[in-house]
Amino acid sequence: MGASELHYFDANATAPLRPEARAAWLAAEENLWANPASPSAAGSRAAAELEHCRSVLAGCLSAMPEDVVFTSGATEANNAVLAFEAERHPAGAILVSAIEHPSVLEAAQKFWKNRVHLLPVESNGSVSLHALEEILRAHRDISLVSLMAANNETGVLQPWCEAAALARNHGARFHCDATQWIGRLSAKEMGACDYVVGSGHKFGGPKGTGFLKLRAKENVAFAGQVGGGQENHRRAGTVNLPAITGMLAALAAGEREMELLAEEHRSARAAFEQRLRLRFPSAIIHGEGRERLWNTVSVAMPRHGNLRWLKRLERHGFVVSTGSACATADNKPSHVLAAMGCADEVARRTLRISATSATTAEDWRGLAQTLEVVARELDADAEENATGVVLLP
Amino acid sequence: MGASELHYFDANATAPLRPEARAAWLAAEENLWANPASPSAAGSRAAAELEHCRSVLAGCLSAMPEDVVFTSGATEANNAVLAFEAERHPAGAILVSAIEHPSVLEAAQKFWKNRVHLLPVESNGSVSLHALEEILRAHRDISLVSLMAANNETGVLQPWCEAAALARNHGARFHCDATQWIGRLSAKEMGACDYVVGSGHKFGGPKGTGFLKLRAKENVAFAGQVGGGQENHRRAGTVNLPAITGMLAALAAGEREMELLAEEHRSARAAFEQRLRLRFPSAIIHGEGRERLWNTVSVAMPRHGNLRWLKRLERHGFVVSTGSACATADNKPSHVLAAMGCADEVARRTLRISATSATTAEDWRGLAQTLEVVARELDADAEENATGVVLLP
Repeated sequence: MGASELHYFDANATAPLRPEARAAWLAAEENLWANPASPSAAGSRAAAELEHCRSVLAGCLSAMPEDVVFTSGATEANNAVLAFEAERHPAGAILVSAIEHPSVLEAAQKFWKNRVHLLPVESNGSVSLHALEEILRAHRDISLVSLMAANNETGVLQPWCEAAALARNHGARFHCDATQWIGRLSAKEMGACDYVVGSGHKFGGPKGTGFLKLRAKENVAFAGQVGGGQENHRRAGTVNLPAITGMLAALAAGEREMELLAEEHRSARAAFEQRLRLRFPSAIIHGEGRERLWNTVSVAMPRHGNLRWLKRLERHGFVVSTGSACATADNKPSHVLAAMGCADEVARRTLRISATSATTAEDWRGLAQTLEVVARELDADAEENATGVVLLP
Repeated sequence: MGASELHYFDANATAPLRPEARAAWLAAEENLWANPASPSAAGSRAAAELEHCRSVLAGCLSAMPEDVVFTSGATEANNAVLAFEAERHPAGAILVSAIEHPSVLEAAQKFWKNRVHLLPVESNGSVSLHALEEILRAHRDISLVSLMAANNETGVLQPWCEAAALARNHGARFHCDATQWIGRLSAKEMGACDYVVGSGHKFGGPKGTGFLKLRAKENVAFAGQVGGGQENHRRAGTVNLPAITGMLAALAAGEREMELLAEEHRSARAAFEQRLRLRFPSAIIHGEGRERLWNTVSVAMPRHGNLRWLKRLERHGFVVSTGSACATADNKPSHVLAAMGCADEVARRTLRISATSATTAEDWRGLAQTLEVVARELDADAEENATGVVLLP
């Protein structure tokens, strides 16, 4: 699939590699491929570049370089944080929002077992700070709060900065899975969180790279993987420097575009949603009333199952999703929409539309038009089916 | 560092990316970058390619495709196996060889705590099957045996196939860290092991990718990282398909060369060692009497510290190492040489020389000549130093 042939609206699953990231990866594979842990001059050059990358990322996150640990992705980092904190607080409990990514929810079950509290969300897709405070007051054993920055299905931004302060006031640490936020919105306030997790491929970096920001001084014993002394003993394993330079190049590109394209991105999506409301008055945009990621629209179409929409849209050159990629294999209705009180039947009509930074207003217009075309096609199919004709997939 | 400018003899730390691997990575980033877990046609194509890679790798390992789990590298896989088996056998013990990689030794300490037995090695760098059997007889609680296929410092091949059979006969499972073996020697017998671990970048694949072979049917509950259902729930996280295709391309190239170049590789190193013995009669080649990886020579030079050799050799265009890259940061004498009964002082004179598959007989000859040149330079330095002249680094 070339990005040019298709109109790609599945960036929350993965984004295409940015040209800057490809160039950085290739250059590093050419000139900086030595093992940064090797005592050779080539190793030292690789180690210096690694520390440069660490400083740049720390700058983006308002953190210290020693607070940054490079990982293979967000799932590894989320697993490592929850495992570490569970061991650190054997009598403590964790509070996780009901709409966390499975790598947080399942890690909570695995490492905290019967010490897991769920923070509910409102029907608008956001957790309530009031509910958070109530729970923290009622359960003094909560030692870790996990709340994502922006939801991967609805795009709804969560009040993570205020939640971090509340957690701190109640003596709990705060973990923020910022996978869908980083590279799309400013990360300057992330220093408020005890743990921040990001993933390179969501913003156009190479797959297989991500990071964890922690508070180094308070977490000397943190070791996500043990073995070699890499990452100051916090994450053993040969450092994937080429991919890290690629991730940093993608992040820099994303940071540049944030100011430059913010208005363009926002207005293109607004126009799309306006047309959607006009042509499909009974469609439901999940989290519509809340501030959301500029790239994401989660919409329950008025009729027909989401997989049928998806297949038809793809025939017309538009790639969307039915929900989060990692849940697709199981074909379970979204736990995010369920937590918002959305009926299964509505969830099964829901499309997740998530643009990349290269998506244009023209792409959004094309998608709106194509949704109308596909609606007619699917209605016609359904009518034929009702008269006994074989149903097309 | 371009591979062409320097003569690179540090492949056991990391190998340069093979052209085949670069091409495969780039092609996949162009055409197969969709998330294999996405329900789109592009996702399905990526998923199909992923399963193709899995089948090919399974074929190399004489395993079933469902036995293969792709990981971010060997360290992740070693950690995951030891964590899983420790939880599975809360009353069991682990037997690890004294010369394992730190990602096995430290994981054993972390997950098995006071339930760790050490399998000693002989002065030739190999474990003894007799000792293994004795220990298995004496400690009936041993539920897991960890023995690497080939040592990363000395290159000494371990009797892993026989050890796997012994472990099985005593009711223990067998874990083989084959990181330095895979891609250099045939993996056809690896099916004998319950767990096999490999790393892409050691044989010219991209960094950040590796694999674990397990017995799927006996390990339904295995989950190295939890979250999305990727890798049949055995390793959550977005699959790094571009890197995996790169790893498989590198592996295929390695497999082709195994037969083609085996004799050439062996004789080039043999000539090097012969010259080494002739010109440095008191040098010690560790594990000399044992079968070793064709690419590795671990040699204690007659005099001068290994870091001084390394720096001087690099000035002449030859990159070698002082030991394993992951131990370099700590500058501790090698635990591998210590386990062989080698004195610290000898270990500190030891160079690890590890060729890539592209290393030629000419490179090996050049290294031998350059060792003689550097010996004279270091001797002269030492003499000047003895007379009070400032010592060059």
